Amino acid sequence: MRAFNFAAGPSTLPLEVLQEAQRDLLDFSGTGMSITEISHRNKAFSAVVEEGESLLRGLLNISDDYAVIFVQGGASTQFAAVPLNLMHHRKADYVVTGNFAKKAFEEGSIYGDAACVASSGDKTFTYIPDVKKIPFRKGTDYVHICSNNTIFGTRYAEFPETEAPLVADMSSEILSREIDVSKFGVIYAGAQKNLAPAGVTIVIAKRSLIGDPLEICPTMLKWKVQDKDKSLYNTPPCFPIYVATLVLRRLKALGGIKVMNEINEYKAGLLYDFIDNSPFYTNGVEKKYRSIMNVPFVTPSAELDDAFVKSAAKEGLVSLKGHRLVGGMRASIYNAMPVEGVKALIEFMKKFEKENA
Amino acid sequence: MRAFNFAAGPSTLPLEVLQEAQRDLLDFSGTGMSITEISHRNKAFSAVVEEGESLLRGLLNISDDYAVIFVQGGASTQFAAVPLNLMHHRKADYVVTGNFAKKAFEEGSIYGDAACVASSGDKTFTYIPDVKKIPFRKGTDYVHICSNNTIFGTRYAEFPETEAPLVADMSSEILSREIDVSKFGVIYAGAQKNLAPAGVTIVIAKRSLIGDPLEICPTMLKWKVQDKDKSLYNTPPCFPIYVATLVLRRLKALGGIKVMNEINEYKAGLLYDFIDNSPFYTNGVEKKYRSIMNVPFVTPSAELDDAFVKSAAKEGLVSLKGHRLVGGMRASIYNAMPVEGVKALIEFMKKFEKENA
Repeated sequence: MRAFNFAAGPSTLPLEVLQEAQRDLLDFSGTGMSITEISHRNKAFSAVVEEGESLLRGLLNISDDYAVIFVQGGASTQFAAVPLNLMHHRKADYVVTGNFAKKAFEEGSIYGDAACVASSGDKTFTYIPDVKKIPFRKGTDYVHICSNNTIFGTRYAEFPETEAPLVADMSSEILSREIDVSKFGVIYAGAQKNLAPAGVTIVIAKRSLIGDPLEICPTMLKWKVQDKDKSLYNTPPCFPIYVATLVLRRLKALGGIKVMNEINEYKAGLLYDFIDNSPFYTNGVEKKYRSIMNVPFVTPSAELDDAFVKSAAKEGLVSLKGHRLVGGMRASIYNAMPVEGVKALIEFMKKFEKENA
Repeated sequence: MRAFNFAAGPSTLPLEVLQEAQRDLLDFSGTGMSITEISHRNKAFSAVVEEGESLLRGLLNISDDYAVIFVQGGASTQFAAVPLNLMHHRKADYVVTGNFAKKAFEEGSIYGDAACVASSGDKTFTYIPDVKKIPFRKGTDYVHICSNNTIFGTRYAEFPETEAPLVADMSSEILSREIDVSKFGVIYAGAQKNLAPAGVTIVIAKRSLIGDPLEICPTMLKWKVQDKDKSLYNTPPCFPIYVATLVLRRLKALGGIKVMNEINEYKAGLLYDFIDNSPFYTNGVEKKYRSIMNVPFVTPSAELDDAFVKSAAKEGLVSLKGHRLVGGMRASIYNAMPVEGVKALIEFMKKFEKENA
């Protein structure tokens, strides 16, 4: 039986995408080769990469002023790539709203004067600092934010207006809501949440910013190199890119990000409404900043939290354990989580509450 | 019909491995989740990583003095990781025996005094310089070689004895022949040739060498970080690692690398013998240095080469076009290429020769 999988990433993928990938795993497009066996220089494969890029451009309305590339190493590698491509004056601002935002900041500090100009660490990252009041510095190379914080279940309700290019890690929310790419200098996202199996990372970078990476930047981390070679500078992570393309095709057919966003708001709304109306479950995030992708919640005790996770798993609602930094539960309800999954979770929550209140 | 796929990488995988992966692509080990959907923190997945590492250690007889890690970014990323982890005195020697050896050398030059101490570029990389006569310098941090040269079809018959740690890119021959890991400081290999789908790279590194990476080394490129976290510092490329583990299991069941090496010598021997006895086909590599993984060859003309590639493809012998740097044909006959594939290729070569000689 297929589980409803609430994992934070790698995470659930659309069933029909998995079925298509399954078929192509033995014979891709009648080539007599698996999608995993085909050369990345084969036209059948470069067509996949081109289609993936083109679908991303269409869905996110990305102009040719931006490079759209598929790279390896996850967002954690981009934490270094950001300063190595952009930090010409060795000065950058970071907003720290969670664990990964903090890691990005620490990595930036390796390469220059990185400053944490605002943080929500004072309240265990349960909110996003008011973007209008952040004291951004003059003369920085960029401002870095993490737009959705997977562990703490927050997201930016609005984005800061900055003089320096705005760089955003959107790993856990890319393609889940409409964004205006033109407001950003760089957007990057590990794909293993909303888009693909682990192993590919999307970078959307304004071409005018990336022409002159630092001398110490590894060639593979130079966005301009990956842009010039259309993500085929070396052997790319073919299978994750291919699955990403299938997911993007499906998203387009569904009506695009506007429709997906509505579905996501609906799913998250069901869950938050239920939690807010229950005396048993709590979500501690300020309402304005609640993520529609990651919903952390707790019962009245750590013991009950443990019991919840275990008995939910027995009913096919899996990977609900919260991150070790915060405990409790977390339901990651990415694009591929069906409404039925959220409804099944709520039904289970009702039952568990009745049995344990 | 399944093709015999002679691609240089990504390349053919064992059919039974693909079939197993196909099954697990919808439901891995009865979890109700795809292998691509399962969290990397799930015990079912960390068990896969541990098994992969353990199989590699067993097959290559790797002691605990060495880290064995799965990373991202391909060998091209390791071209930078090598100096960034090892180049404390900013001085290293490189032996340039082909395209990738040269790229590694160029990347090393970014970080310090990298010297090309020997090259076979004078004869289009058709041999390996005599390892006993290479003028290695004193006081270098490492010596870098590429043990098998995919494009040119050469391999080291013996390895140099060096004072500095020997670092080898073994992407296109790892697990194809027995090696004494203890003679090396670091071995790395993109896995998309002998081991797995593209997207994972193996690094085997002597732990005593990797404790103190350069300050400018991105965290994700620090081997000691990946070693400490057992390849799970961040989300790893789960699917390629999983397939690698299946391939390693199969290699062990087959009898290990000794047996595989014998099969590979047999396959390569069939092909080289046929070429050497034909007035029509030529392989220009010095016999002592011929790769048993990549066999480049030409007919008497570029026009016939083109015709060969096209008509071979029609008979299900695919991806035989040589690299653009050398032209002609190249048959990559990695571990997963069955003997029947090589025999079918030879039969086709006979027929083509008869029709075109």
